[in-house]
Amino acid sequence: MAAVQLSGGIVIIEIEGRDEKLSLEEAAFLLEKGKLKIKGLSIGDFFSRAISTHPAFIVRYIVYRDLKERGYAVRAGRAGFWLYPRGARQGEKPARYIVRILREKDLISIADLDRLLSSARNMRKELILAIVDEESDVTYYEIRAAKLEGTLKEEKEGEEGKEEAALTCTVSLADDRVLIHDEASAERLHRDFYGKLIGEGNKQLILSLIETAYLMRENNRMVVHTPTGDMNYEQFLDYATDKERDFKDKLVVYTDLRAKGLVLKTGFKFGSHFRVYTALQQKHSSYLVHVVHPEHIFAMNELARAVRLAQGVRKRMIFAYVDEDGVKYIDIGRRRL
Amino acid sequence: MAAVQLSGGIVIIEIEGRDEKLSLEEAAFLLEKGKLKIKGLSIGDFFSRAISTHPAFIVRYIVYRDLKERGYAVRAGRAGFWLYPRGARQGEKPARYIVRILREKDLISIADLDRLLSSARNMRKELILAIVDEESDVTYYEIRAAKLEGTLKEEKEGEEGKEEAALTCTVSLADDRVLIHDEASAERLHRDFYGKLIGEGNKQLILSLIETAYLMRENNRMVVHTPTGDMNYEQFLDYATDKERDFKDKLVVYTDLRAKGLVLKTGFKFGSHFRVYTALQQKHSSYLVHVVHPEHIFAMNELARAVRLAQGVRKRMIFAYVDEDGVKYIDIGRRRL
Repeated sequence: MAAVQLSGGIVIIEIEGRDEKLSLEEAAFLLEKGKLKIKGLSIGDFFSRAISTHPAFIVRYIVYRDLKERGYAVRAGRAGFWLYPRGARQGEKPARYIVRILREKDLISIADLDRLLSSARNMRKELILAIVDEESDVTYYEIRAAKLEGTLKEEKEGEEGKEEAALTCTVSLADDRVLIHDEASAERLHRDFYGKLIGEGNKQLILSLIETAYLMRENNRMVVHTPTGDMNYEQFLDYATDKERDFKDKLVVYTDLRAKGLVLKTGFKFGSHFRVYTALQQKHSSYLVHVVHPEHIFAMNELARAVRLAQGVRKRMIFAYVDEDGVKYIDIGRRRL
Repeated sequence: MAAVQLSGGIVIIEIEGRDEKLSLEEAAFLLEKGKLKIKGLSIGDFFSRAISTHPAFIVRYIVYRDLKERGYAVRAGRAGFWLYPRGARQGEKPARYIVRILREKDLISIADLDRLLSSARNMRKELILAIVDEESDVTYYEIRAAKLEGTLKEEKEGEEGKEEAALTCTVSLADDRVLIHDEASAERLHRDFYGKLIGEGNKQLILSLIETAYLMRENNRMVVHTPTGDMNYEQFLDYATDKERDFKDKLVVYTDLRAKGLVLKTGFKFGSHFRVYTALQQKHSSYLVHVVHPEHIFAMNELARAVRLAQGVRKRMIFAYVDEDGVKYIDIGRRRL
């Protein structure tokens, strides 16, 4: 092996009179493993030259090396790596995953994340983010389009003639929630998994603004009473949006998921907007759904924190955002390769 | 019980010719429990009147009721509640906690959180945040000034004549990390818990920018080599700050905690900047430290997510920020009352 040429991320090595093309990462890995030696160029020299021509080399190499050591066939591409099914050799089967490389301190917008996902799906690959942390360890996350389906509607249809929440009642607006004083209505809505019941003799129900807005639209006989007069749906929406900037997006997501047959309660204790049950009688929720602004930019540790928490309580972490096409759901999980 | 008067958050009730003063929350709780009846005023009417004069009543009442049902003596104050040690009656002992009430959708700046903490400490009370979620459930968090102490210095002093990291070496800058090619230096620093070692025959060490900056200041014989010349400490700091906006604050915290005898590694997998060990040979880290901007504003679900994660891995969650007085550490944990 005499001549060596590093350019455009490619190493050209002359082996027995023939030029062999290797990616920088392949060459570095073979050098590190002692399977390649380049005359007059130590491994330190090789790394110095690779870094000075391609500063991002080291981060790419950390991921490449980690994947190889896990036994994968990896092909280096410009924007990331192509990964073959475990045990398969390159070329034997098509690549299954596209691995995009990010660093702990990087930022990525939810729109860009969605674009990466669409691009992977167009290529019929699964999208994996490889995040290189400050310690040069790699954590893998799988990004998927979330499929959210519940059975609430079917369950409700099973109960003959009992339409959900079709009732007339007056509720009192109390800052950021509403109170239903009428005991029969309170108990009826509570059976349908709305609100919190208080009181021993005479029960009252406390509803959130989201629940109230949803019920008002589902059932326009619900009247919201305030000291200065009654509110219609539009007035109520304005009031709620004034209380909480992202109210409308949260309501769109809430309504969309209820329409998919899911049951939603607050996910506050888990740091997300909603915890989501796929059926009424389910003991533990299946998803945590957090609604972000369509221009939201994630810090990597924000993703890591949300996903780690969700995983610890055996739920899937879903980020939702609302744009002109409706609601998009991105499912992010830790991926053990 | 004839006359009732609701004003200024106080209920005045005439009982057997004498005026009794109750807080709105006390009166509501007694009404709910059937221990108080007001002629001509149903519990629903009472709540309606309380809400219309004090819209925040309902959120305060949710917390009051929850604390009472947990068996605490509670005194309602303007900004929150005074809580007595469990089992103690009001007046018997001084209040032990001050409970501040927030709602899931509220925001609080780290500076305000710190001010609440100082004010509680001045009154010799422990600070508890009661966060009322959208489902009207209450979660309690304790806020404490973090005491962070480690034994790294003592451990190092125990090793005769071996000053940490006093070595001369040249490192290559590679985008957002640096590489040490010299094997002896690489292994030496790695023994001191810096960086990640790669290579089998000829070992190299990858350091983060934070570790490099810290080592450069500790040991000015470390030279950072780049393709366009060597960098001094100030040039390196500028470079790193350009790569990561909050680099300087992170470095100040890193340096401060090392000086306290703690060992720091990235906390990325747990969604925080650092995981912190109190001793070199400790198997699991004790703290997660996340550095925020001094003007950072917390959403409640951000706090909930961070604390829940930390609790799940048996670590304390510490938020740190740097202001003109130095580094401040705020320890936040779930509090089971």
